[in-house]
Amino acid sequence: MNQEAYDVVVLGGGAGGVPAAIRAAQLGGRVALIECKDLGGACMNKGCVPFGHLRVAADILGALSFGKEFGFDIPEISKNYNMLRKRQNEMISFMREGVKGLLGKNKVKVIRGVGKLAGQGKMEVGGESLLFRKAILAAGARWTRPDFPGADREGVINTDDFLEADKLPGRVLLFGRSPWLLGLAQSLIRFGSQVTLATREEGILPDENKTVRTRLDKVLKRQGIEILTHAEILGVEKTRGGLQCTLTTKGSEERISVDRVVTLERRASLKDLGLGSVGIDESGDCLRTNEKLETAAAGIYAIGDLSAPETSHYSHRASTGGVIAAENAMGLERILDPRSVVRVTFTQPQVACVGMTTKEAKRAGHDLVVGAAPLSMNPLGMILSQTEGIVEIVSEKRYGEILGVHIVADNASEMAGQATLAMQMEMTLEDLARATFPHPTLSESLAEAARDALGQAIYLP
Amino acid sequence: MNQEAYDVVVLGGGAGGVPAAIRAAQLGGRVALIECKDLGGACMNKGCVPFGHLRVAADILGALSFGKEFGFDIPEISKNYNMLRKRQNEMISFMREGVKGLLGKNKVKVIRGVGKLAGQGKMEVGGESLLFRKAILAAGARWTRPDFPGADREGVINTDDFLEADKLPGRVLLFGRSPWLLGLAQSLIRFGSQVTLATREEGILPDENKTVRTRLDKVLKRQGIEILTHAEILGVEKTRGGLQCTLTTKGSEERISVDRVVTLERRASLKDLGLGSVGIDESGDCLRTNEKLETAAAGIYAIGDLSAPETSHYSHRASTGGVIAAENAMGLERILDPRSVVRVTFTQPQVACVGMTTKEAKRAGHDLVVGAAPLSMNPLGMILSQTEGIVEIVSEKRYGEILGVHIVADNASEMAGQATLAMQMEMTLEDLARATFPHPTLSESLAEAARDALGQAIYLP
Repeated sequence: MNQEAYDVVVLGGGAGGVPAAIRAAQLGGRVALIECKDLGGACMNKGCVPFGHLRVAADILGALSFGKEFGFDIPEISKNYNMLRKRQNEMISFMREGVKGLLGKNKVKVIRGVGKLAGQGKMEVGGESLLFRKAILAAGARWTRPDFPGADREGVINTDDFLEADKLPGRVLLFGRSPWLLGLAQSLIRFGSQVTLATREEGILPDENKTVRTRLDKVLKRQGIEILTHAEILGVEKTRGGLQCTLTTKGSEERISVDRVVTLERRASLKDLGLGSVGIDESGDCLRTNEKLETAAAGIYAIGDLSAPETSHYSHRASTGGVIAAENAMGLERILDPRSVVRVTFTQPQVACVGMTTKEAKRAGHDLVVGAAPLSMNPLGMILSQTEGIVEIVSEKRYGEILGVHIVADNASEMAGQATLAMQMEMTLEDLARATFPHPTLSESLAEAARDALGQAIYLP
Repeated sequence: MNQEAYDVVVLGGGAGGVPAAIRAAQLGGRVALIECKDLGGACMNKGCVPFGHLRVAADILGALSFGKEFGFDIPEISKNYNMLRKRQNEMISFMREGVKGLLGKNKVKVIRGVGKLAGQGKMEVGGESLLFRKAILAAGARWTRPDFPGADREGVINTDDFLEADKLPGRVLLFGRSPWLLGLAQSLIRFGSQVTLATREEGILPDENKTVRTRLDKVLKRQGIEILTHAEILGVEKTRGGLQCTLTTKGSEERISVDRVVTLERRASLKDLGLGSVGIDESGDCLRTNEKLETAAAGIYAIGDLSAPETSHYSHRASTGGVIAAENAMGLERILDPRSVVRVTFTQPQVACVGMTTKEAKRAGHDLVVGAAPLSMNPLGMILSQTEGIVEIVSEKRYGEILGVHIVADNASEMAGQATLAMQMEMTLEDLARATFPHPTLSESLAEAARDALGQAIYLP
């Protein structure tokens, strides 16, 4: 039994655990990382990367159809999904090897197995005990079974199962509120599937600003996605041709025939981590931490999906948290600013929201001013037909503090960095209004939205 | 004769003059704007907008060919250039009407004609005199005839002529050093032209960092563009099939047959502005101003291409300058930070450079540290096959001040806003290293490049 103590033991080798381990090692720590499945975690193996890959392919199909506006006559194209999956899987294998290499280069000891706390300063894995001074829990989230009747039927699948399949479903019902389902819906419809999206909420992205919700809703519907709101699945029956789902939507009953029902419900993996052994409460949706990402047990940190409600399951939250937890574990003083976590939806146009919505800002008691710049008034926006695109900035009236930025745009995810920097650096509307963004870009509308909030819009009618 | 004085008279209704006039009017000024051609200027009518439109169409063709990697089998597509031009011209007309509307809404008096200073406080246009308290000169640049033998032959054209043509040239020689020619070269090759790019310089983008130059050079060559460096045109002869150009490149002589030679050389329009009447020197490449954008004549400002060498002819420099000059003219105190002007090249991948190159920073006496994050290590970069993509950050060693950011990436122009904000807000490497960019995005590599400069790269082997 290895009784020499590690400075830091990281439990979980995903989007959070990997940078945590590397950062702790960079700071001179003796570090072990425990992973029971694939290095890279859900993000690289089952989430951001494969679905990002599918989305990029779907965006190409979107570009094809947009090309008609420019005079391109594009005949029917044939799609080889196996070739797409092959590229995707090769890329993931390559990335996994890369992660292994990075951990090795940084002298992080990788231990394969299921880890579990066994009292303060001790982790058990595969019958062995590891001693640690600090631990970073990064065990992620796990699937929860949806609670509708028929959820256990064959053909009712989650996104992991979806990735396993060697063809795309012809007719599909996506059920849930995750923004990932919106991106998937769009990818599928571009690949020729018939797509219904059903949510229990009053609409898609229910927590975001109305501007964002209604604009994306319009785009998705125009692209042919059927969206059912206030929806409940009453049952799923196997038929000869596939599955018959009975739903209510806004009180009225509907029957739809599909090949697959895809759900996406995940919750922090609190069980089986031995949390009780160090006095951490195992109940609740996710592990609570302070802003230094430390749990109720001193020296034990938690990051990523393990310490977040499902609506905050973002890889960038995990990786930023990983670095912060590692630095704190190694004696530095860092905090996670939750405002900096962009809520991104990988549709086309994309949605990226940072900071507070208008409703949240009002609730927090701010005297508000909201500025907006529709991309239909932006030169590149016109070229790209960004009819539903917009940048909306929520700010505090007195000093012009920027409280939230909401973007619907092609590449909103790349523009969003400007919003996170603005908030990180506590930029005011005045600062943002004066920024010089290159022309012609969609980013120019960030400055214009700030000017609009100041009553100084230049290019708005 | 109207002898009532305007608070501000703006000479030129392009990318600089329009926002200058609107901003001055917003601040309570009585404003006139003089334009002899189309509202919107070179940018909207002959530059950024039409070439941006062509580039977006070419990017779609690029996406098509990239689609093969994802298993799409795309047959020959037919291209209707007239339809493309129709869309482009309709868009430009619509934008022009928009500018007219904006000026009207802001109560800017638009005067059609050729304006000219007639002593301090007086502008002449179409035989009438306008009195002004302040003037903003925004007359832009004009074509200069290239100085090689045969430059006056039919078929040797500039980009204005290019836009007039109702078809694209089958074989084309692009001669010059403008970054716009690089974008045009790529657009043309994607539309099926045979493209040679020749420059007198030692390579493309000669003033930028080597990393940027060599990577873009590699991409363009791989796409089939022939690049001739240290090139001189010795003569252009008319042949039955088109034009025969004789060039030297690195000392050796070459003959190429083309349909068109396209050049792009512009210089500030200093003549015929009546500068002498207010004591401003008419010689030199462009009009000199102080950092408040005021010329040698008190109360007379100059912005945009009129006050910039050709290498700084960027619309965003003009529009930012317009707002600043207007504010100064109306009694505020603003300066133009030249570091904030992104140098952007609209190829695919795009190039965006902000602030100093490594060479400039060294010459300025800085003790440097340079960090880089190749996009081949970025998850979205891998998905998008951004093989030649990179983010490079030049910074001062002691405090980590960011001196320059250099990006080669799809959508570098949208990412560049992050670099301009970082420099505007005087962010340090440490600040940028800690920024949370959404995942998966190319922007993540900005933080990684900052970490690399600090010796804290997480994802680099």
